[in-house]
Amino acid sequence: MLRDSRLGAISKDVLEFLSSREPDKKIFQADLLVDRAHLIMLKEQGWVSAEECSTIIETLAGIEESELGEAEDIAEAIEGYVLAKMGPQGGRMHTGRSRNDKVATSIRLALREEMLGLMDEQLSLIGTLVELAGKHTDSVMPGFTHTQHAQPTTLAHYLMSYADAFLRDLNRLEEAYRRVNLSPLGAAAFASTGFKIDRLRTCRLLGFDGLVENSMDAVSTRDFILEVLADLSIHMVNLSRLSEEIVLWSTQEFGYIELDNLFASTSSIMPQKKNPDTAEIARAKTGSVLGSLISALAILKALPMSYNRDLQEVTPHLWRGMDWTRGTVRILDGCLSTMKFNEKLMEERSGEGFSTATELADVLVRKMGIPFRTAHRIVGRLAAGSSLPTFEELEAVTLEMAGLKPGECGMSAVDLAKALDPRSNVAVRAGTGGPSPAETARMIEERRGTLARQARKTAELRARAEEAVKALLAMR
Amino acid sequence: MLRDSRLGAISKDVLEFLSSREPDKKIFQADLLVDRAHLIMLKEQGWVSAEECSTIIETLAGIEESELGEAEDIAEAIEGYVLAKMGPQGGRMHTGRSRNDKVATSIRLALREEMLGLMDEQLSLIGTLVELAGKHTDSVMPGFTHTQHAQPTTLAHYLMSYADAFLRDLNRLEEAYRRVNLSPLGAAAFASTGFKIDRLRTCRLLGFDGLVENSMDAVSTRDFILEVLADLSIHMVNLSRLSEEIVLWSTQEFGYIELDNLFASTSSIMPQKKNPDTAEIARAKTGSVLGSLISALAILKALPMSYNRDLQEVTPHLWRGMDWTRGTVRILDGCLSTMKFNEKLMEERSGEGFSTATELADVLVRKMGIPFRTAHRIVGRLAAGSSLPTFEELEAVTLEMAGLKPGECGMSAVDLAKALDPRSNVAVRAGTGGPSPAETARMIEERRGTLARQARKTAELRARAEEAVKALLAMR
Amino acid sequence: MLRDSRLGAISKDVLEFLSSREPDKKIFQADLLVDRAHLIMLKEQGWVSAEECSTIIETLAGIEESELGEAEDIAEAIEGYVLAKMGPQGGRMHTGRSRNDKVATSIRLALREEMLGLMDEQLSLIGTLVELAGKHTDSVMPGFTHTQHAQPTTLAHYLMSYADAFLRDLNRLEEAYRRVNLSPLGAAAFASTGFKIDRLRTCRLLGFDGLVENSMDAVSTRDFILEVLADLSIHMVNLSRLSEEIVLWSTQEFGYIELDNLFASTSSIMPQKKNPDTAEIARAKTGSVLGSLISALAILKALPMSYNRDLQEVTPHLWRGMDWTRGTVRILDGCLSTMKFNEKLMEERSGEGFSTATELADVLVRKMGIPFRTAHRIVGRLAAGSSLPTFEELEAVTLEMAGLKPGECGMSAVDLAKALDPRSNVAVRAGTGGPSPAETARMIEERRGTLARQARKTAELRARAEEAVKALLAMR
Amino acid sequence: MLRDSRLGAISKDVLEFLSSREPDKKIFQADLLVDRAHLIMLKEQGWVSAEECSTIIETLAGIEESELGEAEDIAEAIEGYVLAKMGPQGGRMHTGRSRNDKVATSIRLALREEMLGLMDEQLSLIGTLVELAGKHTDSVMPGFTHTQHAQPTTLAHYLMSYADAFLRDLNRLEEAYRRVNLSPLGAAAFASTGFKIDRLRTCRLLGFDGLVENSMDAVSTRDFILEVLADLSIHMVNLSRLSEEIVLWSTQEFGYIELDNLFASTSSIMPQKKNPDTAEIARAKTGSVLGSLISALAILKALPMSYNRDLQEVTPHLWRGMDWTRGTVRILDGCLSTMKFNEKLMEERSGEGFSTATELADVLVRKMGIPFRTAHRIVGRLAAGSSLPTFEELEAVTLEMAGLKPGECGMSAVDLAKALDPRSNVAVRAGTGGPSPAETARMIEERRGTLARQARKTAELRARAEEAVKALLAMR
Repeated sequence: MLRDSRLGAISKDVLEFLSSREPDKKIFQADLLVDRAHLIMLKEQGWVSAEECSTIIETLAGIEESELGEAEDIAEAIEGYVLAKMGPQGGRMHTGRSRNDKVATSIRLALREEMLGLMDEQLSLIGTLVELAGKHTDSVMPGFTHTQHAQPTTLAHYLMSYADAFLRDLNRLEEAYRRVNLSPLGAAAFASTGFKIDRLRTCRLLGFDGLVENSMDAVSTRDFILEVLADLSIHMVNLSRLSEEIVLWSTQEFGYIELDNLFASTSSIMPQKKNPDTAEIARAKTGSVLGSLISALAILKALPMSYNRDLQEVTPHLWRGMDWTRGTVRILDGCLSTMKFNEKLMEERSGEGFSTATELADVLVRKMGIPFRTAHRIVGRLAAGSSLPTFEELEAVTLEMAGLKPGECGMSAVDLAKALDPRSNVAVRAGTGGPSPAETARMIEERRGTLARQARKTAELRARAEEAVKALLAMR
Repeated sequence: MLRDSRLGAISKDVLEFLSSREPDKKIFQADLLVDRAHLIMLKEQGWVSAEECSTIIETLAGIEESELGEAEDIAEAIEGYVLAKMGPQGGRMHTGRSRNDKVATSIRLALREEMLGLMDEQLSLIGTLVELAGKHTDSVMPGFTHTQHAQPTTLAHYLMSYADAFLRDLNRLEEAYRRVNLSPLGAAAFASTGFKIDRLRTCRLLGFDGLVENSMDAVSTRDFILEVLADLSIHMVNLSRLSEEIVLWSTQEFGYIELDNLFASTSSIMPQKKNPDTAEIARAKTGSVLGSLISALAILKALPMSYNRDLQEVTPHLWRGMDWTRGTVRILDGCLSTMKFNEKLMEERSGEGFSTATELADVLVRKMGIPFRTAHRIVGRLAAGSSLPTFEELEAVTLEMAGLKPGECGMSAVDLAKALDPRSNVAVRAGTGGPSPAETARMIEERRGTLARQARKTAELRARAEEAVKALLAMR
Repeated sequence: MLRDSRLGAISKDVLEFLSSREPDKKIFQADLLVDRAHLIMLKEQGWVSAEECSTIIETLAGIEESELGEAEDIAEAIEGYVLAKMGPQGGRMHTGRSRNDKVATSIRLALREEMLGLMDEQLSLIGTLVELAGKHTDSVMPGFTHTQHAQPTTLAHYLMSYADAFLRDLNRLEEAYRRVNLSPLGAAAFASTGFKIDRLRTCRLLGFDGLVENSMDAVSTRDFILEVLADLSIHMVNLSRLSEEIVLWSTQEFGYIELDNLFASTSSIMPQKKNPDTAEIARAKTGSVLGSLISALAILKALPMSYNRDLQEVTPHLWRGMDWTRGTVRILDGCLSTMKFNEKLMEERSGEGFSTATELADVLVRKMGIPFRTAHRIVGRLAAGSSLPTFEELEAVTLEMAGLKPGECGMSAVDLAKALDPRSNVAVRAGTGGPSPAETARMIEERRGTLARQARKTAELRARAEEAVKALLAMR
Repeated sequence: MLRDSRLGAISKDVLEFLSSREPDKKIFQADLLVDRAHLIMLKEQGWVSAEECSTIIETLAGIEESELGEAEDIAEAIEGYVLAKMGPQGGRMHTGRSRNDKVATSIRLALREEMLGLMDEQLSLIGTLVELAGKHTDSVMPGFTHTQHAQPTTLAHYLMSYADAFLRDLNRLEEAYRRVNLSPLGAAAFASTGFKIDRLRTCRLLGFDGLVENSMDAVSTRDFILEVLADLSIHMVNLSRLSEEIVLWSTQEFGYIELDNLFASTSSIMPQKKNPDTAEIARAKTGSVLGSLISALAILKALPMSYNRDLQEVTPHLWRGMDWTRGTVRILDGCLSTMKFNEKLMEERSGEGFSTATELADVLVRKMGIPFRTAHRIVGRLAAGSSLPTFEELEAVTLEMAGLKPGECGMSAVDLAKALDPRSNVAVRAGTGGPSPAETARMIEERRGTLARQARKTAELRARAEEAVKALLAMR
């Protein structure tokens, strides 16, 4: 349609190569909203008549995506539809604008919706973690470093470490939202337009919080996509750590958890299998989202100003990355909500591997006044043995390495036994951020408040966006 | 179907998250071939009767992808179809195998087709470059370094530099083909099977060149996908350089080429525009393919042996990367075949910017015996001026910087003029690989031979694969 | 040192493979600060005596990085030094902490410095753009889409589009700073410690704004590194676009700018060359920073909680990414400050290629009431010609395609001439964000205010950090 | 030096930004070899006298990298040194060449060395795997899919799956070597040279196998770097899988292996810890190498012909990627050679989790003629129970689901017992590529032959390269 008078026909192959119609499905509704807002403003500014305006809007209201004809992109398809229905007067719709500002606006509108949806899903997942943690402040388990038993901790402390990480992921998205929910509309091809138009009016009609002001910047920048994809990638990396642990803890060797059947799969050949496929796919999606980010970065690298067709190739990576991330958040929420924890086994294991060695060294410092590094070496020597140290072994090594006898320096066999008890280990770690039941409970309570505040903030953002759209849809 | 007796029902959400049905469309035909080959072999080994075998094959022959029911993947869907049509006897089809070896085999079969298709398209593109070069051995143009005029060269020399790079890209794919066209079938879940089966028979039935022998390796490895995606990425990087130059040379400022209208687009707002959108999209696709590679690498990183569900997430990146690359090769072939070169302008520009300075320095060395670095400095001084040097200027600077007078050392004004002539510059660069018309013509002729040999090799690979498949399809 | 009693000696090869000593140079000063803060707090809590505390601090005050002995990392090297100087009492320094929390704290401290440095450099670069723009609100130039002449704009409008993009880049870093400048200290290995310590005290002593509270999260997370690397990557992508245009505009064909000799290089063989090497390297560094980001993402993917040695491999990517970005910002600032713009040529070119076609179509709409799409087609037909349309041509085509005669509908030859004048085109684009001199001047003035506010904010952040450090360094 | 007469001085900042001196250390020796070969050829062609040639070579022979002065790159530094020592006659060295062809040649020379070194290290690692496997053909262990017990296998079968993967990695490098070991020398800046030179002569003097013929291609292409980095990345992904399993199998929960102390580390706070740090760093290096690849790809994307300064930024990624990969191969070789396998525990675990279920289903097929899918369902039902099925349970379920009684269809309790025995499971998997001791032993023997052949091939490549270099070093 657009090319007729200047370039003539296009071939099938080239059209397919250039077309964005498939990914444009994501912005179809947004594109229609942009048309409506632009028309209302054109009418108010006197560039289309009230009648033309309402006729075009009625036409737009009747479009189904599936009815649209062949075109390079959704904007051209919609305009083609309007022209076919209304004749040349429909061509007034494109007054004072370009596909360049239109597509940038539509992407931002559609992305706003996706981000709000994701933020709700994140809140649900974090809520699941916090409530699970609330039930497990006393569930002692091995804490790991290097995937080796390190020191005892609790399941609550562990779950809350993910809750806090995911809260940061949510905060990043919230901040990105402020840079996403801005209007490029009115920038036209990049140079703005000679028609007197009102950019702030379309901005408000569409529920945007402000403008991407400079008109060249407005159509050229896709850094908001990069930012969102980066935020998704970081979130996926955090989610992948949890996914990895679901796989790991589901092994026969660990046996710490059992997934609900709903979140497991079996094998076409091995009938006994119950596999953690959901967690594996969640883990794998991380790689896919990283790829989306790097694709977008590589495409945008070294493009001169202003609009280049390369930009079209960026957006599908955004939609894919968003779909993958949202699916992963929902699935992990479901996995966590339904899985069973083998608390008894976890507690049994929590003292294995001399994971209380640090506490023993600390007790040597506290009771006997030995410098920490010396105490560390004493316990290191004891750890080379194959079982937990007896008091006699402790005495012998301490005497040899520090010239002191525990029994003479205020340290008893009872102190040793307590130092070696996982539950005592946890109880004594009661400082800020530590795993003691009371401290973890305090953090859980505090995070409940944070979640409630965040939920209100997200709801307000959504309300603001939805009210504007609702009002716009009522206008003719 | 598979999970019924072990895990019970699955939810819609989870099924969608786990499903590979959309990308499995790429392997649907291949999957049916694998079923056939496996059945023929089972029959020959006595595990299914001749009648069962031919009944199942007839059933398979009638399947349309669109008729298949809900399932996690295409293999399960096909088996479900067969069971629904034939009852429990259809369940013999899965004797001595697993989805793990089946999917690995199907991917390799489908990929083999794609690679052969791509190699043909590459041969066509390289052929286009070579034939274009054949017409332009005398077309003098500016050669660039740092996107600055550097020294004169010819359009043929330039085009052939891409032909040679693309030939290397083709060679890499050929070598990868040898690692792709191998059969994992018979590895079953990873441990092979207790049924006596004949892996070499299915290998030959499917036209593979050999086995991925170790059965654990056979189902676990996706390095053949990484290799192909890496080869595609490198090819795309080479293609993107050409794309960039099509964009650059199409600018008003350069004006070296004009794209055919078929490969250009216009603007929705700016009616005068003729934009090189095809080259821009080609350039952008490069970023997309890089992302596919990095996704696959990141997904496979640190997966323990053997099969993990994560592997399923790798394959769609392969298909996308392949589609994007093939589309790009075809489009650039079309762009090149139809574009117009502004040879006159290119030749005019070839002497601008004192791009003959190197030749002048070289002539000072050859005629006057001045060390090259000294000659380079003399001409560097002359280049700081705003126009080409006169003989007088040359004399003055040479005297000052080298203590010699050109006229007294065998160098005349005629020598200077010749040194400053672009066409002479090109003619004198007649050594191996250089731009002189004769040397470039020699290389063009040589590459024609290479292309013919390559075309025969690719045709043989294709014939071998197709004949096996044809024979298999005739078996019952 | 640490391994003696537990594991015995280490080999040279393994030590080299495991060592972080080279990248640890970046955190050497920070690591000493962490030691000091931790010691002061230990003293206040009664775990070391005042004398021990001041002796260790004096010892720390005398260390040079080059004096330290062999060790896996800087923390071990420092502790080894202290033990060698002071004997076993030096081993008290490590009471109630681990290398896990120490290194996380040191990285954040060192990164804080780097970010403040970068933000200052960004402010300088944006300031350069804004001031340059201030001189060029009347410098008309071609605006580009698809690297094709699109519509006239001004140099100021163009420069300000980068200023706005870089301001967003700065804002992202500011927000990341709030997540970076938090203290993990006191988390010990991940489980906090049984020693009563005061995490808020060390937090304040080091000038942090708050805690990374959950102790498992505190040592495990490197998402702050991912976020900073993502912000750097996005910034580099924006910078690479400017770099690309410096290369492009420096070509003989464009000739829009000339780099100062200080920011150009020549050739070892071609004496006439003046190459934009600084902009090329800036462009290339973008790829390097992207790689740093993807490395960090891939390393962190699917690591189970809590600390894993893999984390050590992440940090060098941060330092490299930061160095490359800061170098690029400084160099581009220098390039811009010193380059010459060929304003005359830019203005001449601004009307070429019928870049005023959009305005002509708009005028047909405004003067004659033709629907925009119809006007677009009329001008598209005129654009297929080889020169700017005459009034007669306009009349003929308008009559044919819209059935109207311009002269009879209020449109004169004067209107045509004005529509075709680049300077008029710019003047009429006076809406929000547009290139008209007045509107651009308004934005420049507004951004000057923004920059001043940002500079104050950054200065406050720096002052807060530096005052804390200064106070800490005075404590014994 | 080079810029004096054309551009004047350079600032410290800019020099640092542009300099490649640090990474050029890797090519210093190669660069001197290139100088020598070029000089010998220039002498033979009559462009320098025998005396000049031998004087320059003597001067080159005396250079230490540390003595060289300030310069943008190593080539300029070397030439500067020669000029300082010899005066202007040293300037003859650069006759008929450019830094562009010189650096491309030096990189290839240095890379050749690195590749040969890596191939030797790969051969050693594969040899270690094969010899370890030779000792463990009877060591039964659980085979995993989805990190869940799947079916029994042997340690030999498992180790050989890595040996085969690493052999493919080696083959890829070998093929890349053929594209690396080619000479670009004589291409000069990109246009070749007007001096009559002999490219084949320098090619042979340097031990190259052929030319990168087209002179524009010769200086522009870095696809050989991309290919090597891709091969390294794929190899690292394969290595990371082994690293992951070393970490996993070292956990208290798995306990399948114990690393030698030499390849483990301990903790600064937890004295009992023995951590698999070497395997963790190996795993992490994978992410670093992927980043190197993506950096190189992104830098090269969309660069126009021919040489651009961006190319300089690619090479350091190659050297880093190579160093990281070589270190990883060596360390994993050491880990494997020294680790202890807990064979007893592995065998005990091999029957847990009903991992023989597949064999049971297969036996139902073989003995009773039940279709596989039906047998799969029967065993799936049995697997839902908490312990291994008794013959009575088998009877009941088979009767219900298939209407058959095992005892009446040729299947006995002994058959059941055998089906449930891991060692029998392994023994029966005796087909090509399976885990039965005999089949694995066959493959081990075969791979020993392959390794010997590969070692000879690598040795020949090395001998060819080293003999050429040795002869060249003797020439004056």
